[in-house]
Amino acid sequence: MKPQAAFFEQLGPAGMVSLGQVIRYASDAGLLVITDGKRNDIGSTATAYAKAYLGAGDASPWGSDSLTVSPYLGRDSLEPFVDVCDERAAGVFVLVKTSNPGGGLLQDRVTDGQTIYARVAELVQELNQGRIGESGYGPIGAVVGATYPEQLAEMRAAMPTSWILIPGFGAQGGTAKDVIAGFDDAGMGAIVNNSRNLIFAHRRDEYSQKYGESRWQDAVSAATDEMNAVLATRIS
Amino acid sequence: MKPQAAFFEQLGPAGMVSLGQVIRYASDAGLLVITDGKRNDIGSTATAYAKAYLGAGDASPWGSDSLTVSPYLGRDSLEPFVDVCDERAAGVFVLVKTSNPGGGLLQDRVTDGQTIYARVAELVQELNQGRIGESGYGPIGAVVGATYPEQLAEMRAAMPTSWILIPGFGAQGGTAKDVIAGFDDAGMGAIVNNSRNLIFAHRRDEYSQKYGESRWQDAVSAATDEMNAVLATRIS
Repeated sequence: MKPQAAFFEQLGPAGMVSLGQVIRYASDAGLLVITDGKRNDIGSTATAYAKAYLGAGDASPWGSDSLTVSPYLGRDSLEPFVDVCDERAAGVFVLVKTSNPGGGLLQDRVTDGQTIYARVAELVQELNQGRIGESGYGPIGAVVGATYPEQLAEMRAAMPTSWILIPGFGAQGGTAKDVIAGFDDAGMGAIVNNSRNLIFAHRRDEYSQKYGESRWQDAVSAATDEMNAVLATRIS
Repeated sequence: MKPQAAFFEQLGPAGMVSLGQVIRYASDAGLLVITDGKRNDIGSTATAYAKAYLGAGDASPWGSDSLTVSPYLGRDSLEPFVDVCDERAAGVFVLVKTSNPGGGLLQDRVTDGQTIYARVAELVQELNQGRIGESGYGPIGAVVGATYPEQLAEMRAAMPTSWILIPGFGAQGGTAKDVIAGFDDAGMGAIVNNSRNLIFAHRRDEYSQKYGESRWQDAVSAATDEMNAVLATRIS
């Protein structure tokens, strides 16, 4: 479950109280929670964000398992998150290559034969070293958009021990064919994010007549099953 | 007044309620409030952050005048903030060159003869065009650390119509001599940030004996006067 912090913050302090309740509800239901906050800062401030969001149950005040973080401030801005991941068995997803058209402005720039996003991937891979679990993956993951399938394949190879969170599927145009490059040979290693298409499934043509507004939960369930079926066909 | 969002978020939902109260209190006292959240995301999510934090009084649920934002997601991630600045007479400060030692990992990389931070400065300058007020400055500002005085001079020249927020003064090592390059010839255009040295002035050697813990407000006041005096000497 990946709540988008911004949509709660848009409602002010009361919205943030709701975010806390949503995270606790999902966590109590046994779901892993990725708080999508794209936070980061330097030094003690990065540590404050890490301690805020990382740690399920009572280990952190928000209680989420994971957080999305921005890399613009460099390695020393990411290390406090790594430290807290070690302490609390949590994880982070570092923005590597984002799904929006404008993401390339900085991320695709090439210096010394390497794009900025590839340099960030290298950093993610470095930070994950010595932290690989039984699954073959470590706590330092990456965000790579579904809208750039070629870069997704490149990034899967560059970060063989990192979970890749893949936004941009569905509403942003990414298809099942586009995201397969994010998975490893065993069909592991990627988390496909399809927020709007699932949350608002009852407004999609194929579900609106069948379920309508009142049965939105059934529409979400049907849309999720459909997405999983499409992904399973592609990955197997 | 620049509250650091992370230190409130570290306290969970209750901390965010306090952040809202602190912003309102400062705003009611007639202070301009820069919420230091280093937020950003793409599309509708960036708009949600902009609407959350930009707009004093009741114009936004948090009520702050300005917000620090990250540029890693590119131009289309910044434009929603510009739109809300236009609607609500608010401002943003885009991270350009940060004060931490690791900031150079991405920011200092050179491509086509231009550093990444210079490319971001160019973008800030572009976004400010057509938005310049009577002061000669526009709503799209920049964050440039005091710890890199040469880059600060370069950035003042590259963004002649942008306010520069300068962190790194004091506790992080930046001096009055280091920050003068951030001001224009009239002694305008820069906001020097000295959070820890002022907030915790009562713990500094020069103030602890005189004021102690109980008179921390007097220590803050004395440290602020001292800082302003030092800056005034340098700038004039």
